[in-house]
Amino acid sequence: MPELKNDRLLRALLRKPVDVTPVWIMRQAGRYLPEYRATRERAGNFLALCTTPELACEVTLQPVRRFDLDAAIVFSDILTIPAAMGLGLYFAEGEGPRFERPLHGEADIAALRVPDPENELRYVMDTIRLARRELAGRIPLIGFAGSPWTLATYMVEGGSTRDFARVKALMYREPAVLQKLLMTLGEAITDYLNAQISAGAQALMIFDTWGGVLTPRDYVRFSVDPMARIVAGLQREAEGRRVPVILFSRNAGASLEALAGSGCDAIGVDWTVDLAEARRRVGEHVALQGNMDPTVLYAPAQRVREEVAAVLVSYGRGSGHVFNLGHGIAPDVDPDHVAVVVDAVHEESRKYHR
Amino acid sequence: MPELKNDRLLRALLRKPVDVTPVWIMRQAGRYLPEYRATRERAGNFLALCTTPELACEVTLQPVRRFDLDAAIVFSDILTIPAAMGLGLYFAEGEGPRFERPLHGEADIAALRVPDPENELRYVMDTIRLARRELAGRIPLIGFAGSPWTLATYMVEGGSTRDFARVKALMYREPAVLQKLLMTLGEAITDYLNAQISAGAQALMIFDTWGGVLTPRDYVRFSVDPMARIVAGLQREAEGRRVPVILFSRNAGASLEALAGSGCDAIGVDWTVDLAEARRRVGEHVALQGNMDPTVLYAPAQRVREEVAAVLVSYGRGSGHVFNLGHGIAPDVDPDHVAVVVDAVHEESRKYHR
Repeated sequence: MPELKNDRLLRALLRKPVDVTPVWIMRQAGRYLPEYRATRERAGNFLALCTTPELACEVTLQPVRRFDLDAAIVFSDILTIPAAMGLGLYFAEGEGPRFERPLHGEADIAALRVPDPENELRYVMDTIRLARRELAGRIPLIGFAGSPWTLATYMVEGGSTRDFARVKALMYREPAVLQKLLMTLGEAITDYLNAQISAGAQALMIFDTWGGVLTPRDYVRFSVDPMARIVAGLQREAEGRRVPVILFSRNAGASLEALAGSGCDAIGVDWTVDLAEARRRVGEHVALQGNMDPTVLYAPAQRVREEVAAVLVSYGRGSGHVFNLGHGIAPDVDPDHVAVVVDAVHEESRKYHR
Repeated sequence: MPELKNDRLLRALLRKPVDVTPVWIMRQAGRYLPEYRATRERAGNFLALCTTPELACEVTLQPVRRFDLDAAIVFSDILTIPAAMGLGLYFAEGEGPRFERPLHGEADIAALRVPDPENELRYVMDTIRLARRELAGRIPLIGFAGSPWTLATYMVEGGSTRDFARVKALMYREPAVLQKLLMTLGEAITDYLNAQISAGAQALMIFDTWGGVLTPRDYVRFSVDPMARIVAGLQREAEGRRVPVILFSRNAGASLEALAGSGCDAIGVDWTVDLAEARRRVGEHVALQGNMDPTVLYAPAQRVREEVAAVLVSYGRGSGHVFNLGHGIAPDVDPDHVAVVVDAVHEESRKYHR
């Protein structure tokens, strides 16, 4: 493998000195880019795009061709594991992900098999291998997975939900059955992420999109603890470097300490938390990634730059910050505003690293 | 007016000693009750139910007939004010509230008129007067309104939203225009809540359902400050007693201090915040209302009692706590479980008030 030329992301995630704050954007390979929409059309649909390594690699690279980003992230979906487990993933137009065969109880959960990443999920590994070759050491490639709790919500609810009634009913009625599901998912995710490291992923992120719908006590029990077990099972050394792990829970600002204590290197925070406050609470233990409100990108360029500056001010001096949005970028954003963000982060942050 | 026999709610909201912790349930007059469904059917639709004082009074009283609740809350909707402003409120089946004429910009906002509560909103005042007469001093009656920010989100988006793209685009592009809207709404809400006090409301609650989608800085500017202006404009003395004001922002656990500093008497907290932690942070300034996860009500009765006990333990000894859910009760909950909650709160809390 060629030597990594820009290692700001990896250094910042390990709280080592950097020249400027690194930046990447959640969902940076996405519908706001016309070239993405063209490739997706060529693929036919979203799932075909995910499962065709040449096309998934192409969209992985599109944003890093356009913008001076400090990382690429493999183009994939958090629901690849439940799909590989045979739940029948599909996307209903305008409705988000659905499963043909959601989990109805203990028997369904006991029957789940842990997929072999180089078999049922080989398309993700092939995408990583292709993308590493194409990136040729320019910037690092991030691999990712959904968290056990977040995957469990989709698998039990059968898709997206507003109230999490089914999965929480399971949690309150049969906590041991839910724990069994989280254990199986934890094994599957550990294997999957280790295979991503072997295939070439240089940093990992676990998306816990729905950890924030739990009470602080249940968040630890059903979301953080299962993620901590995964982190403990990862091969975090590859190509002579540490592979940093980022955990991201949305709306979990009340429990940053619990997340930071999971053994990860960095935590993602959304815009409902002040970075200065988050750093005060956990900055001795982990790096922070985030946290600009994605809707700032609807503002005029000058306003976008001001908000970038405000996020950088809130983190303050020194390493340990990776700039990102607090959630994925919206499909109707002007791509030029992403360039404004990326360039502003690099320009404005230099003074914090002297 | 007859003397108030059970004043636990009013005492706890003012952090005065009580014998047991008072309890009421957000959306306690709702679809989980068969008698509510029958009355709603008689009304024809939800809006007709809200705007017909005899029927709105009837559903206000239904839960307090069934359960040993310490308060009634007037049956109404947070969107009565935008409806009175002429935006054309309607409810699309299964889709939540919509407006026929959402606000499209500065001109629409400048044209808004502050409604006269005893004219366009008289049906709410009549419901309060009827309910007070029927309650005959048994328990206090709570009046309420939506917060300026929360009403603004619906009025600009035209209904419910997942990403708040339009109202946040307005916020980032034309903050002065949004402030003008919040000022107009603030005036309207102040008049509306003062009229509710005159009609007989004995405590008030402002529902800031969507304050938690803002950054901490914008939450203060666009959600808390407008609520604080309303609180400052309320006649908080009626029938020789103080009329306590509760503010409730969902998902704003990071900013409890800001909310508690608004001049209100109590703040509502959802289940993503630990009550012990919330009390430590703001309990010297305000009472706390909440915060059991509504989905606990799907659990068996014994488990419900355990969760009630856990919430009471987390608040601890002394007054200043009103038990409630952290969000409205779901339509498919077994009403018997509400009885379990109410009775468990009274039984289990006695020891914290000795």
